[in-house]
Amino acid sequence: MLHQKVDQDLSDRKNWALRRQLGIPNNKRLWVLACMDERLPVEKALGIGEGDAHIFRNAGGVVTDDAIRSAMLTTHLFGTKEIIVINHTECGMMTASGEFISHFLEKKGINLDQTSIDPALPELKLSKGVFSKWIKTFVDVDETCVKQVELLRHSPLIPEDVVIHGYIWEVETMRLRSPHSRLSEKVNTAQAMSAKGL
Amino acid sequence: MLHQKVDQDLSDRKNWALRRQLGIPNNKRLWVLACMDERLPVEKALGIGEGDAHIFRNAGGVVTDDAIRSAMLTTHLFGTKEIIVINHTECGMMTASGEFISHFLEKKGINLDQTSIDPALPELKLSKGVFSKWIKTFVDVDETCVKQVELLRHSPLIPEDVVIHGYIWEVETMRLRSPHSRLSEKVNTAQAMSAKGL
Amino acid sequence: MLHQKVDQDLSDRKNWALRRQLGIPNNKRLWVLACMDERLPVEKALGIGEGDAHIFRNAGGVVTDDAIRSAMLTTHLFGTKEIIVINHTECGMMTASGEFISHFLEKKGINLDQTSIDPALPELKLSKGVFSKWIKTFVDVDETCVKQVELLRHSPLIPEDVVIHGYIWEVETMRLRSPHSRLSEKVNTAQAMSAKGL
Amino acid sequence: MLHQKVDQDLSDRKNWALRRQLGIPNNKRLWVLACMDERLPVEKALGIGEGDAHIFRNAGGVVTDDAIRSAMLTTHLFGTKEIIVINHTECGMMTASGEFISHFLEKKGINLDQTSIDPALPELKLSKGVFSKWIKTFVDVDETCVKQVELLRHSPLIPEDVVIHGYIWEVETMRLRSPHSRLSEKVNTAQAMSAKGL
Amino acid sequence: MLHQKVDQDLSDRKNWALRRQLGIPNNKRLWVLACMDERLPVEKALGIGEGDAHIFRNAGGVVTDDAIRSAMLTTHLFGTKEIIVINHTECGMMTASGEFISHFLEKKGINLDQTSIDPALPELKLSKGVFSKWIKTFVDVDETCVKQVELLRHSPLIPEDVVIHGYIWEVETMRLRSPHSRLSEKVNTAQAMSAKGL
Amino acid sequence: MLHQKVDQDLSDRKNWALRRQLGIPNNKRLWVLACMDERLPVEKALGIGEGDAHIFRNAGGVVTDDAIRSAMLTTHLFGTKEIIVINHTECGMMTASGEFISHFLEKKGINLDQTSIDPALPELKLSKGVFSKWIKTFVDVDETCVKQVELLRHSPLIPEDVVIHGYIWEVETMRLRSPHSRLSEKVNTAQAMSAKGL
Amino acid sequence: MLHQKVDQDLSDRKNWALRRQLGIPNNKRLWVLACMDERLPVEKALGIGEGDAHIFRNAGGVVTDDAIRSAMLTTHLFGTKEIIVINHTECGMMTASGEFISHFLEKKGINLDQTSIDPALPELKLSKGVFSKWIKTFVDVDETCVKQVELLRHSPLIPEDVVIHGYIWEVETMRLRSPHSRLSEKVNTAQAMSAKGL
Amino acid sequence: MLHQKVDQDLSDRKNWALRRQLGIPNNKRLWVLACMDERLPVEKALGIGEGDAHIFRNAGGVVTDDAIRSAMLTTHLFGTKEIIVINHTECGMMTASGEFISHFLEKKGINLDQTSIDPALPELKLSKGVFSKWIKTFVDVDETCVKQVELLRHSPLIPEDVVIHGYIWEVETMRLRSPHSRLSEKVNTAQAMSAKGL
Repeated sequence: MLHQKVDQDLSDRKNWALRRQLGIPNNKRLWVLACMDERLPVEKALGIGEGDAHIFRNAGGVVTDDAIRSAMLTTHLFGTKEIIVINHTECGMMTASGEFISHFLEKKGINLDQTSIDPALPELKLSKGVFSKWIKTFVDVDETCVKQVELLRHSPLIPEDVVIHGYIWEVETMRLRSPHSRLSEKVNTAQAMSAKGL
Repeated sequence: MLHQKVDQDLSDRKNWALRRQLGIPNNKRLWVLACMDERLPVEKALGIGEGDAHIFRNAGGVVTDDAIRSAMLTTHLFGTKEIIVINHTECGMMTASGEFISHFLEKKGINLDQTSIDPALPELKLSKGVFSKWIKTFVDVDETCVKQVELLRHSPLIPEDVVIHGYIWEVETMRLRSPHSRLSEKVNTAQAMSAKGL
Repeated sequence: MLHQKVDQDLSDRKNWALRRQLGIPNNKRLWVLACMDERLPVEKALGIGEGDAHIFRNAGGVVTDDAIRSAMLTTHLFGTKEIIVINHTECGMMTASGEFISHFLEKKGINLDQTSIDPALPELKLSKGVFSKWIKTFVDVDETCVKQVELLRHSPLIPEDVVIHGYIWEVETMRLRSPHSRLSEKVNTAQAMSAKGL
Repeated sequence: MLHQKVDQDLSDRKNWALRRQLGIPNNKRLWVLACMDERLPVEKALGIGEGDAHIFRNAGGVVTDDAIRSAMLTTHLFGTKEIIVINHTECGMMTASGEFISHFLEKKGINLDQTSIDPALPELKLSKGVFSKWIKTFVDVDETCVKQVELLRHSPLIPEDVVIHGYIWEVETMRLRSPHSRLSEKVNTAQAMSAKGL
Repeated sequence: MLHQKVDQDLSDRKNWALRRQLGIPNNKRLWVLACMDERLPVEKALGIGEGDAHIFRNAGGVVTDDAIRSAMLTTHLFGTKEIIVINHTECGMMTASGEFISHFLEKKGINLDQTSIDPALPELKLSKGVFSKWIKTFVDVDETCVKQVELLRHSPLIPEDVVIHGYIWEVETMRLRSPHSRLSEKVNTAQAMSAKGL
Repeated sequence: MLHQKVDQDLSDRKNWALRRQLGIPNNKRLWVLACMDERLPVEKALGIGEGDAHIFRNAGGVVTDDAIRSAMLTTHLFGTKEIIVINHTECGMMTASGEFISHFLEKKGINLDQTSIDPALPELKLSKGVFSKWIKTFVDVDETCVKQVELLRHSPLIPEDVVIHGYIWEVETMRLRSPHSRLSEKVNTAQAMSAKGL
Repeated sequence: MLHQKVDQDLSDRKNWALRRQLGIPNNKRLWVLACMDERLPVEKALGIGEGDAHIFRNAGGVVTDDAIRSAMLTTHLFGTKEIIVINHTECGMMTASGEFISHFLEKKGINLDQTSIDPALPELKLSKGVFSKWIKTFVDVDETCVKQVELLRHSPLIPEDVVIHGYIWEVETMRLRSPHSRLSEKVNTAQAMSAKGL
Repeated sequence: MLHQKVDQDLSDRKNWALRRQLGIPNNKRLWVLACMDERLPVEKALGIGEGDAHIFRNAGGVVTDDAIRSAMLTTHLFGTKEIIVINHTECGMMTASGEFISHFLEKKGINLDQTSIDPALPELKLSKGVFSKWIKTFVDVDETCVKQVELLRHSPLIPEDVVIHGYIWEVETMRLRSPHSRLSEKVNTAQAMSAKGL
């Protein structure tokens, strides 16, 4: 009878809308740490869709206290079992050093040491002179990716059995790669290709 | 001649891949602060696509030092002129209080006061006993949305001329609404509809 | 041979065009009672199509003598075994009281007590002063839906083994719900979500 | 700025969901009276869609007190200016006479004169012996269509300036025709075609 | 190896282009006799396509010496085993009598008795005064269809085991019917529907 | 108002179904004479569709008395102004001579001289011994096409201002060509290509 | 876990980009020798796509030292096992003789005997007066195709077990044929069709 | 009239099939020199299609006497005005040195100095010991591309006003780039991005 099909649809809709109250995890039991860059389409990069993952994104796709807080919540409370980190080439975090940015902001008249870094949580304090470091610029995307994975693996706020991997999104190819695995380095010369008899 | 068309394509590709070095902002000059929930498809919610916006997402879609850091970078360095905040109904941040979660973690054997909240930045310190507050749970999604907009508007690290608005994503309808504007409250009874002659 | 395929097609066409004479019921053996509102796409709401159901619609989607007449015919003569009632939120029947509408019509110069309510059937009479009640406005869509199901279940003109259910169509979400099951009430605050440790 | 587009979308959604409270009529300002038959796809027949018309449907697509009630509400209160009646060929209302159906029901043990025809409105009374007439069977679909248009045109409960037309839906062709305009009568013989020199 | 696939394609192409020389019949082993009317899409009517049938069409879709010649060739020499005749409603052959047309042509100055009816075959002779009959107008499409089938069944130039059927194409519904099986006659009145208790 | 759109649709439908009675010609005012071969998709070959042309087809696509009759009717009575003849390569009419076919039929026991060539019109007579010629086989498709055009142009039963052209359909390429214009003859050798300096 | 699917995708991508280093042959293990003509879509002609074959193309699709060099490399080093040659009708190589072209170039002021035929390899020498022959014009496409297959079959620089076939692309039909198998020669006259009884 | 449209189509078809005889150049007046690699889809890379260009392909996409011959013909005789060279990354020509390949072939028993490099043109001679150089392996794809363009620009057999450009196809990104313009080199580190304040 038709009402049975209708009732099933209503039940599915309820399970979607009340997922957290009903204790239903996301489809892939996955948490993603990725950069906020406009050229990084996270779902497309991973081949996932609506409902599949909790997706954390910040400037750089780097470990911060906010990332730790969010990863802690998803793994301890919301059923997540896997973490994937995605950094990307040509990241804005590599366009200037933290010191350069600090001076740039000070020249605009901002007193960095007196500014609250979290207006909603004054109890969060930064040691003096650490503002530049807090900006978290970096110099090598492959090393950065490897390092974020390490930081997450050793955080006591994330369960040890969570599986963690990291990848680089190449904006120049709009594809993923593993860190330190640039295909583009191996294809342009006979030397790079280890030509026989060279 | 064909090479002119080819050269134009190569130029377009370069402008995409080297956007940050060439000083090209994202298409909409937009930064989004949204929750990491799997039921919140940010691009679909806003009707935007690849290349359009910097999208920051964390647990709750709330202002944190990481959010301030990321907003500061996109507005001061990357050409962003508008901010949109998206919180959503049935958020995991409303399923338990910060105190409940702290006790839950402590029972698992984690010493919250001795744990570094940012393993990459030990200089970031939390006052004692503030861990529960740092988790940033909340009790009302409409009020939370309004408050995040206020916090961003008053942050000295974000330029004053940046335009900021906030919306609620309803997971039960998979649509946006403005805070405190629930259509569902106005449609079920004659009283809610202010029936004439009631 | 091709003529066999052609003959089968002609037979199918005949069975469609002469369904009532041949005693063929509708595909789902279903009768629907629904409101005439332009925002209620009955077939889409139920996931049905051409040929599937007899669909009765009036102002409100409420039980009337016409609804009883139509349900009686479909169940006793045309093979129908199931009834589904669909009322909807923001129904015009909740925008004013019956009394208000009666006065409104009288002010336009219509003498309600002398007007035939069925010009084709003068033998159908309304007791004096019942015009406002005859309009069948209502004040709560969930209660109305439950009540219509009850009225149909107890009508001696509808066979007892007919299976009857009722649903609400939410025009604000363009989706069905069961009566008294508004998801929107359970998702906006920690209190509604029965947050742990609140 | 993007928030302007988002705000426009929210406004459109509100205007849809709160149409009756905001006094917005249906798109075509149209009310349809049609039969409930499963072979009559009303929207397709008229080339209309979601939001376009109030659609009243009952057994036969005939004028009843419920039809008058619904037409009265849509024209006086909801902005409707046009009425279209759709009857159809091979209607179940032509498969048996009212008397035959009455006897059929009585043989099943139903006491027709003591049964309430509207369980929600006991004040609605049928003169004794009129049950068979109340069933509203008919014998000619073209004449029936013409008659329903007349009945509506002369009802004092429907404003005089409402424009009213009637059509027949042919289930054998799945197309509309005007009453008394059967193409099938004019195409099979030279005589019907008024052949020259016959 | 790829050449095997290429060779198979070449063989298929050869079998198509040299069908008659290779003795390959049409796909359905079917010959169709149909009217030349622009509203009769023969392939669509029968649900067939390229390569499926030999399709003979003339004014009226009637048996002529040309039809016999063509049917003789397809059945005796080209492997055809089935014949389908399609006449259609509102045929031009029913718009005037043969006499009317003869007079019409004579008034235009054509001497019908001295005109060769087949300029390529003077040996084909028409008895005097038979021109009007030769035009082959008819007065009833259903009877005409039945008669063409009979004429073909009894022609000594067509093998006896060829299976022959006839259908009417209704231009008013753009669908086929069997002769003397008009659905439109059975659906408009209670009498036509043989209503019970009438 | 919607009824205006509906009325226009009904009028269009009537004009289609009653074309001959209303004196409406086919869309292109075109009559086609083509072979009945299954590899000749007439509409596709000419780029036309439903309603566009009267299409006469027989064995060979040759002028017969039936073709003259049909052409006479469409041009004098139904508004046709243009004729296109389509013959095709690898036609069955070139697979055997008329004599061969006559002997073939006689060996099957058919008395050709005593058989009525038109069972519906005994007054149509063939001179003795002309049966083989009546079969209308031919030996060269290009010459045949040119000849059919000539025959039609000079028939007194077809108005002189009718425009007539002929084409060959190549089954080996599934494309049209003009008679005596085979591209395949000009492309295989330097000689055929009139190579310079050969 | 999702990372497994991602890793598989990365591996597939690597296998594509590093095919030659990893010793992966093309999908069909096929080498094609074809003309450079703009009307010869090689992949479409063979029903192949990206990754399927090594495709060599020159003026004429003829065997040259470059063709031998390329075939030698693909068969000895890159895993190729099959060769297909495609010549085509109306080839530019049949529009003039080698002598005509030589004179044409000399009239433009080019000293053919003193011009290096390979500016990158002066060690490649042409005997005096052989320039016209080196241009490799031809006079019959079918014979040319057969000859190229022979030349490749007997080259000591191509392994003996490589399977070699040749086809003609007909630009007039945009289809392949085998050499000396022109369908167009067999379809235009009764004689070509070897008509019975001719 | 329809025959005009048909005649135009026939004329278009003739102009396609007899392009060389009629002196019609390819659509883009373009000649392409590209590698025969299966990962290089030449038309897709350039955004061109059927009829657009003469496409020469050999092992490496390098200048040879065959390339010069083909370029000479297309520019002097067939109307070509532009040349585009496409080499690609991970080319098989970089997997081994010419010497290595020569030894490899000799070990298989082939006497390189006595083997005719062009079995169809014995008059084409290679100086002794130049076989390895004749194989035309290379060591750097960017330099190779630049060099091929130079070689073509200075060949006396190609008109001076022909416009010549060269591009690299990246198999790892399936996109074109200009020589010496690798985006992948400028996106991985702060240093490569010339970060400010580094």
